[in-house]
Amino acid sequence: MSGLKRRHVLDLDDFAKEEIERVLDTAVEMREVLRRPIKRVPALRGKTIVNMFYEASTRTRVSFELAGKNLSADVVNVSASGSSVEKGESIVDTMQTLEALGADTIVIRHSQSGAPYLAAAHTSASIINAGDGWHAHPTQALLDLYTIRDHFGRVEGLTIVIVGDVLHSRVARSDIWGLTRMGAMVVLSAPHSLLPDLGCECPGEAGRACGAHLPSVTVEPDLDRAIEGADVVMALRMQKERQASGLLPSMREYIRRYQLNRARLARARPEAMVMHPGPMNEGIEIAADVAHGGQSVIAEQVTNGVAVRMALLYLLQGETVGAL
Amino acid sequence: MSGLKRRHVLDLDDFAKEEIERVLDTAVEMREVLRRPIKRVPALRGKTIVNMFYEASTRTRVSFELAGKNLSADVVNVSASGSSVEKGESIVDTMQTLEALGADTIVIRHSQSGAPYLAAAHTSASIINAGDGWHAHPTQALLDLYTIRDHFGRVEGLTIVIVGDVLHSRVARSDIWGLTRMGAMVVLSAPHSLLPDLGCECPGEAGRACGAHLPSVTVEPDLDRAIEGADVVMALRMQKERQASGLLPSMREYIRRYQLNRARLARARPEAMVMHPGPMNEGIEIAADVAHGGQSVIAEQVTNGVAVRMALLYLLQGETVGAL
Amino acid sequence: MSGLKRRHVLDLDDFAKEEIERVLDTAVEMREVLRRPIKRVPALRGKTIVNMFYEASTRTRVSFELAGKNLSADVVNVSASGSSVEKGESIVDTMQTLEALGADTIVIRHSQSGAPYLAAAHTSASIINAGDGWHAHPTQALLDLYTIRDHFGRVEGLTIVIVGDVLHSRVARSDIWGLTRMGAMVVLSAPHSLLPDLGCECPGEAGRACGAHLPSVTVEPDLDRAIEGADVVMALRMQKERQASGLLPSMREYIRRYQLNRARLARARPEAMVMHPGPMNEGIEIAADVAHGGQSVIAEQVTNGVAVRMALLYLLQGETVGAL
Repeated sequence: MSGLKRRHVLDLDDFAKEEIERVLDTAVEMREVLRRPIKRVPALRGKTIVNMFYEASTRTRVSFELAGKNLSADVVNVSASGSSVEKGESIVDTMQTLEALGADTIVIRHSQSGAPYLAAAHTSASIINAGDGWHAHPTQALLDLYTIRDHFGRVEGLTIVIVGDVLHSRVARSDIWGLTRMGAMVVLSAPHSLLPDLGCECPGEAGRACGAHLPSVTVEPDLDRAIEGADVVMALRMQKERQASGLLPSMREYIRRYQLNRARLARARPEAMVMHPGPMNEGIEIAADVAHGGQSVIAEQVTNGVAVRMALLYLLQGETVGAL
Repeated sequence: MSGLKRRHVLDLDDFAKEEIERVLDTAVEMREVLRRPIKRVPALRGKTIVNMFYEASTRTRVSFELAGKNLSADVVNVSASGSSVEKGESIVDTMQTLEALGADTIVIRHSQSGAPYLAAAHTSASIINAGDGWHAHPTQALLDLYTIRDHFGRVEGLTIVIVGDVLHSRVARSDIWGLTRMGAMVVLSAPHSLLPDLGCECPGEAGRACGAHLPSVTVEPDLDRAIEGADVVMALRMQKERQASGLLPSMREYIRRYQLNRARLARARPEAMVMHPGPMNEGIEIAADVAHGGQSVIAEQVTNGVAVRMALLYLLQGETVGAL
Repeated sequence: MSGLKRRHVLDLDDFAKEEIERVLDTAVEMREVLRRPIKRVPALRGKTIVNMFYEASTRTRVSFELAGKNLSADVVNVSASGSSVEKGESIVDTMQTLEALGADTIVIRHSQSGAPYLAAAHTSASIINAGDGWHAHPTQALLDLYTIRDHFGRVEGLTIVIVGDVLHSRVARSDIWGLTRMGAMVVLSAPHSLLPDLGCECPGEAGRACGAHLPSVTVEPDLDRAIEGADVVMALRMQKERQASGLLPSMREYIRRYQLNRARLARARPEAMVMHPGPMNEGIEIAADVAHGGQSVIAEQVTNGVAVRMALLYLLQGETVGAL
C-alpha cells in the first residue's frame, strides 16, 4: 500500500474527494485492528511521532498517542509548559530541533491560526494539524466523516446541521470543507454573532472571522427550522466565556434557542445521528439525555478518531513502511 | 490463571481474605520478574493503561507506569493540568472518553473522596483507585500487606502500630481495612485531633472524619505505650500545614511526643519493622537514622509496590490475557 | 563490548582522553543506527531510564527519551511540577525512591549546581547530569566533541572560540573541560562581566563564578581578534534578562560587539564550523543567516546528541547488556 501524495495534513481545504476516501478506507482497516484483543500492528516500528501541544488537550493528544503506539511507533509528548518554548523558542526552531532529534511526524496543536503551516514550511518531517486557533482541525473532520459514512454508508446527499459557536470553531471550519467536498449539504444554525461573515471580502485570511473563502453552506438561525429533515445534528461546544465577552446577551437565552434537546431532535429524521466534538458542556449546548441517548454517536466518534489518526500516521509514512 | 472476580479496585473494605491472598501470591511471581535482568513479560501486550492523575504524584504514578510497562502494556499519562480537565470536563465524561479511546484500565488519583467510585459507575474499563482525598489508597495497603507477609511469613496475629495523622490519611484507612481483614491487630497512636472519631454515628460517610464504619482498632495516644511489643511501626507523613490549620498546638511538641526515633523503636519487638508510605518528612514524623536504619523496609515497600500493581493490572484483565 | 569504568556522568573534568574517545567511538555506531529505516536496537530491553527534570527542557529531555527508546529501554519522564517534589521531597529521597521503583539510570536536570553529585552519592542507579545550574552539562560537551571530530577527523590542535555569556553557561564549562582534555585550544570572547574570574583563588567551588579551577584557556574580549584563524566558533545563548540584572549596559551594544554575523565569521578559517547549543536567540548572539548558513552544524549537533546519549546509556549499563 502506498501513501498519500502529501507530506502534511494542515486542513481539508486541499483534500480531493478521492484522497479523503483513501484515508477513510484505510481507517476501516485500522478500526478492525482496534477490535482485536491485541490492538497493535508493527507498521511504524522504529518511527518517531512527537506530540507538540502548545495548548491543553486530553482527547486529541491521547488519541494521537494511542494511534502511534497501536502502530508500534515511539511517541514523545511535549507540552509548551515545562519545555524550552517557555524560554521563547520560535516554532520554526522547535520544529527543526524536533526533526533533528529524529521526529518523522510532528503533531502540532497551537492557539494561533496558521502555526502548523509555518511549521510545515520549515521541516521535512510530516506535520499534522491537531487544531490551530479558530482555523482548522482536520483530523476531527476526518473522524466525523468516518462516523457519518460508517452509519449511512455514504456522506453524499446527506444534510448535516452544525449548531452553535461556528465563529470560534476550528472543528466546524474543517467539517465544512470535508462535508461539502464529500457532497453533503451543510446547514449552520447559530445567533448571528456566532457565525462567520460569509459575505465579506477577505478570502485570503484563513482562520479569521471572515468566512467568504469557505465553501457554500446554508445559514438558518432558527434551529427548529434548520433541524427539519436533518440526517446529522452536530452540536458545538459553547464556551461560557462568550457571554462575558459580549457575544451572547444571555446564556439562558442561548440554551432556550440553541440547546440540542429531545424536542428539537424529534424534528430531524427519525434515524438522525447526534454528534459532538467534545468536551461537552452538558445542559448548555446539548441536553444530557440527548448526549447519552440512543441517537448519540459521541463515544464512537472518539474511538473512530483513533482509527482515523492511525490511518493518517500510516499513510503519511508512505512507502517507507511495510504492509499492515 | 484466571483473574479476580471484580472489575475495579476502589478500596479494600470489600476484599475477602482469599482475594487479598490471591493478589499477594500473584505479586510474589511479579517480584520474581523484577529480579530478572530483563524485567519484562508480555502478559498485557496491546492493552492500554491510562494514568489519570488529578493530583500531583511521583512514586505512585511512576510505580503504575513501570508496572504497566513491565507487563508490556501501553501506558498513557494524563494530568489535570494541561488536559481538558482544565476546561471543566466532568469525571464521568473524561472516563467515557478514555474508555472510547481504548483504555482497558484507568488508574485514577483525585483530591475528592469517592471520585473513583463515580468513575467506576460510568465506564466498563477497570478503575484502580490510586488515592482519593482522605478516603482510600488500596494499592498502598496491598503493598504494605505484601511487605509485612514477606518478612514475617504471615500477617495474622501481628501487632501493627500506625503513628500520626490518621485523620487525613487515606493510606491509614485502607491499611486498617486490609490489616484487620488479614487478622492483624491495629493500634493507632496520635493526638486526639488527628484521629478519626471512632465512636460517632455516621457509618455511611466514607472518607470523612468519622471512623465509625472502620473495623475495630485500638487507640493508644501515648506512643511509648502503644509501641510496646509492636511487630510493625508505621509512621505517617505529617503535613506541615496541620499546625497552621490549628490541629496541632506545636510541631515541636508533636515531634517530642510522636516522632519515631531510636529510643521509641527500642520499645518494640527486637525484629520490629519500620514502614512509611512516603514521601517522608525526616526529622518530623521519623528520625533520619530510623528511616534509613536496619529495621526500615521503606525502600522495599516501594519496590514491592511495583510488584503488587503488576499483579492487580494483570489480574483485572482476567482471562483475556495469557499466562505469565 | 564492556562498559565505561564509571557509574555516573556528572561532568567531563574527571574523564580521561581515552574514556571520551570510547564514548565518541560508540556514538559513531549509534549514529549508524539512527540512519537505518528502523532506528531501534534491543540493547537496553527491560532497562528503565527515568528523566528527572527539575527544570524546563525540550531538546535535552526529548533527546534522552529518544536515545533510551532507540535502545528499547523503558523511559519514564518526571518533572518537578506535578510530582511529589512539589511536596518538598528531598533529592536524596527522590533518588532512593526512583531506584527502588526500578530505575537503572536517572537523568537529572536541576537548577542548583551540584545536585547530580548529591544524587549520585545516594543511589546505586547510574546518574547522568543533564545540566545543573551554571555548573556542567557533560552530554552537551560530548556531542560538541563528537560533532567537531566528525567534521575535522580530530579535535587535537583545533582552535575553538566560545563567544558570549560564559559566566552563566554550564555548556561552556563542560566544553572547556572536554575540549582541552582532547587537545584543542579554547578562546573565550565576551565582555568582562560575562566571564568567570579565571584568576581568583577558590578552586574548590565548582559552578561558581570563579573559574580558577578550570583548565587553561585564552581570553580575548575583542571578538574580531579572537575569531581570526578559528576552526570552530560556538555562540552561547544570551539571556535577555542579563541586561536587566545590570551585567550588560545595553543589548544593542552587545549585539554590535559580540553577535556572530557573516562579516565576523569571514575572519575565521574558510572551513570554520558554527555551533550553538540552542535554543538560539536569533538576531542577538547569532545572525539568522549564519545560524542557518552553510557553515552551521547546529542541526547536526542535535542529531549527534541522540547518538552520544545512546552511547552513554549503553556504556553505563556495562556488561549487563548484550552486544549492539
